[in-house]
Amino acid sequence: MTDSWLEQIKWSKDGLVPAIAQDYQTGRVLMLAWMNREALEKTISEQRAIYWSRSRQKLWRKGEESGHIQKLHELRIDCDQDAVLMQVEQLGSIACHTGRESCFYLQFDQQKWQAVDPVIKSPDTIYKK
Amino acid sequence: MTDSWLEQIKWSKDGLVPAIAQDYQTGRVLMLAWMNREALEKTISEQRAIYWSRSRQKLWRKGEESGHIQKLHELRIDCDQDAVLMQVEQLGSIACHTGRESCFYLQFDQQKWQAVDPVIKSPDTIYKK
Repeated sequence: MTDSWLEQIKWSKDGLVPAIAQDYQTGRVLMLAWMNREALEKTISEQRAIYWSRSRQKLWRKGEESGHIQKLHELRIDCDQDAVLMQVEQLGSIACHTGRESCFYLQFDQQKWQAVDPVIKSPDTIYKK
Repeated sequence: MTDSWLEQIKWSKDGLVPAIAQDYQTGRVLMLAWMNREALEKTISEQRAIYWSRSRQKLWRKGEESGHIQKLHELRIDCDQDAVLMQVEQLGSIACHTGRESCFYLQFDQQKWQAVDPVIKSPDTIYKK
């Protein structure tokens, strides 16, 4: 089996590409994270979003702690082959570690970033201590 | 006037953040590009998407050649303050330099990236020679 589709990706110097997760039903952009070669490969083979955690420097199976798995429905790259867009089913309807639907909850308004989306579930109840 | 909202952004080592443009009406993700401090500042002050072109190493007023300006409707950042999401009105209904609606037209299918969206307008007629 050839992996030429993987070779076509224009990885950054750090071997990463930004990956966007979008709710396949509502179109809401849920988050942006990063993938390395292995993460993209596993995202496709396991049909769920798997990222590279830059802070922890390891593979991050989205939902591994919270259960908020992102099931893959479609995967695309852009014209420059240096960005990934996934259509996902967000289990639990929560993508953000703050307990919100989307990580993009800070809106620019009146020269400030204002949190405009509700917390659906407290992080304390999402993550086991 | 304070620029503390700009200071809150977690810029990369290169002084950039990824910025997603999403159609404010259809929810289609149109493109992902990059912004530096000046680009984000001008995006807000001019109310249109302005990126930093990494290949040309200069400010890129989206639509400056093609007329395909992205008028800003809303701007958000994510929980980590290291990614930007814009709701935009895409003039000309074409975001991609290939003449397609979205840059994300390459879909993973059968172990290949397949171009699945139509070219709305030939690039030859978009860009003046």
